[in-house]
Amino acid sequence: MLDAACAIMAGGAGTRFWPLSRFDRPKQLLALGGGDRSLLQLAWDRARALFPLERILVVTGERLVEAVAGQLPELPRSQILAEPVPRSTAPCIAWAAARVHREFGDVALAAVPSDQWIEGEAAYGAAFARAAALAREGWIVTFGIPPSRPETGFGYVQAGGALGDDAFAVARFLEKPDRERAERLIAAGDVFWNSGMFVFSTGRMLEEIRARLPETGRFAGAVVAAGTAGEARVVAERFAGCEAISIDYGVMERAERVAVVAARFAWSDVGSWDAVAERGEGEAEAASGGVLVLRRDAPGTWVRSVAAGRKVVAVVGVGDAIVVDTDDALLVCRRGASQDVRAVVEALKARGRGDVL
Amino acid sequence: MLDAACAIMAGGAGTRFWPLSRFDRPKQLLALGGGDRSLLQLAWDRARALFPLERILVVTGERLVEAVAGQLPELPRSQILAEPVPRSTAPCIAWAAARVHREFGDVALAAVPSDQWIEGEAAYGAAFARAAALAREGWIVTFGIPPSRPETGFGYVQAGGALGDDAFAVARFLEKPDRERAERLIAAGDVFWNSGMFVFSTGRMLEEIRARLPETGRFAGAVVAAGTAGEARVVAERFAGCEAISIDYGVMERAERVAVVAARFAWSDVGSWDAVAERGEGEAEAASGGVLVLRRDAPGTWVRSVAAGRKVVAVVGVGDAIVVDTDDALLVCRRGASQDVRAVVEALKARGRGDVL
Repeated sequence: MLDAACAIMAGGAGTRFWPLSRFDRPKQLLALGGGDRSLLQLAWDRARALFPLERILVVTGERLVEAVAGQLPELPRSQILAEPVPRSTAPCIAWAAARVHREFGDVALAAVPSDQWIEGEAAYGAAFARAAALAREGWIVTFGIPPSRPETGFGYVQAGGALGDDAFAVARFLEKPDRERAERLIAAGDVFWNSGMFVFSTGRMLEEIRARLPETGRFAGAVVAAGTAGEARVVAERFAGCEAISIDYGVMERAERVAVVAARFAWSDVGSWDAVAERGEGEAEAASGGVLVLRRDAPGTWVRSVAAGRKVVAVVGVGDAIVVDTDDALLVCRRGASQDVRAVVEALKARGRGDVL
Repeated sequence: MLDAACAIMAGGAGTRFWPLSRFDRPKQLLALGGGDRSLLQLAWDRARALFPLERILVVTGERLVEAVAGQLPELPRSQILAEPVPRSTAPCIAWAAARVHREFGDVALAAVPSDQWIEGEAAYGAAFARAAALAREGWIVTFGIPPSRPETGFGYVQAGGALGDDAFAVARFLEKPDRERAERLIAAGDVFWNSGMFVFSTGRMLEEIRARLPETGRFAGAVVAAGTAGEARVVAERFAGCEAISIDYGVMERAERVAVVAARFAWSDVGSWDAVAERGEGEAEAASGGVLVLRRDAPGTWVRSVAAGRKVVAVVGVGDAIVVDTDDALLVCRRGASQDVRAVVEALKARGRGDVL
């Protein structure tokens, strides 16, 4: 167990997993990691193995509080931080840091997304232990994923001087590159994908926020000052006024003494149906909740159905497709085209079909 | 109105339109002809335009009687002939011929399938008038479809001497040919597809049946002799003992004085989902019963959904496919592969999934 706290960031509202994801059931609440547990529940399981229960917070949107509480029955309600409006990750982390700082003092705090897929518990635990130690020395730590392909959808972190095993001072953050630049970066060998997982001491982070994001800094200071009884009022009065900016742009990329710890665990941002299908998750009958999938001459076609009852899905002669079926919406998508699901969602919005969004 | 009777043969039990077709809802009960009316209802509409109501019979299986009656509210119950067991078309036609012969004497009777698609009412009516006239001269008449492609799934009829406009004595019936032979037949120019629609006088047909199919002949004779009151008992006692054989094999191909009338109307046997999709039926939102279909980069993909509610179907990057969605089963099939739907049905049988068959 680490002498540290953890904030699971569960406020996301993506549309890329339509028709399974909906306005009130975003990606992190879906079982996209294999098995029956949602990505949020898997993030919770990982946190529970490393952090004391009373030091694990979940930050989410007000409209998702009931769903989050339903999925995490072990989580005390007081440890759910319900954002009244979405304001990206900087205000989210500011609130969590302020709460932890007030209750536990200047300790290491991990801020982790709730919608990623991770495998390799031992390596995960070791990375957080390393990062927490660096955080206590005053570093803000990001986890870097050793790149396996010239991905153009992620930001990159360039490593500078080594800080011991698998840790480096960050030389600089790099915006999402084009394909050619991504290939050059990977060839150079000193870059990581920016995972969006961070560890820092609450004192250092609150200082950085105060220095760089004045409204968010005032909000965080008020949370610390208000005490447990006054926190809700501070949130109601001040959260919406915080700068809507990611912690990456707002703090990390402008701060000194930022480190990167190399992730030696398997990681995916679960960015689209393609990413889920690539892992083959959900192929088996069992994973489809009693749905029977029959294929004839349909290599590479991946099926997920959550329709009520014991639905049968038969695929004949259509390969390399992704089929996602629910009671009120069906998606049939070519593998490799699942980024276009956003456009489908936009088209549905334009047609006033909020009932299936 | 023709001075003739009509028997609509509605006993079929195909599996090629799964998942829309089911054991108790076969092809003829489905709206596969465009619009909301089933193929059976469209056959009924055609018959109603040509034959007196009291001379139109529907022959079907016992298990389909309620469904047939539900779709044809105008049809008196006494004009539904419910076969206790399936015995192909010869006993079906024998029963209809005997019933009509008993009630209306030796008149022309048209026997038509309930599961074909036809367009061109005037030409259809003219063909039946021509055929009824030939039937009254003692000919057994089949309708021949001028072939539009070297189809290997149909039997062919070779025309002999002309019998006036669009009518010929049949030289011979030809079994389903292979591709090469089909091409030669079409090149020769004197063949038609055998449509499965017939017209004959009841006296002539009952004679033929008596001569060639002894059990069926005895059954038909008993129906005539029994009168209205005794018919049900005759059917219960004798129908199952009839030769299970098609009228083509059992009578037509062995009889003298058989004529073919060329069909000048549009015709399809609606043999598979491909045949339905080729006509583009069911493409529009309206035809899908309120279902919204969104396509992106999906040329040639055809969607039919009968799922409850206002389901949305989105197809992204998957072209030339057939998608059929119901509440308990979903088919995604490559165009051109819809014959394989039978194999899916067999696989479901083997897995004991009668609930979706």
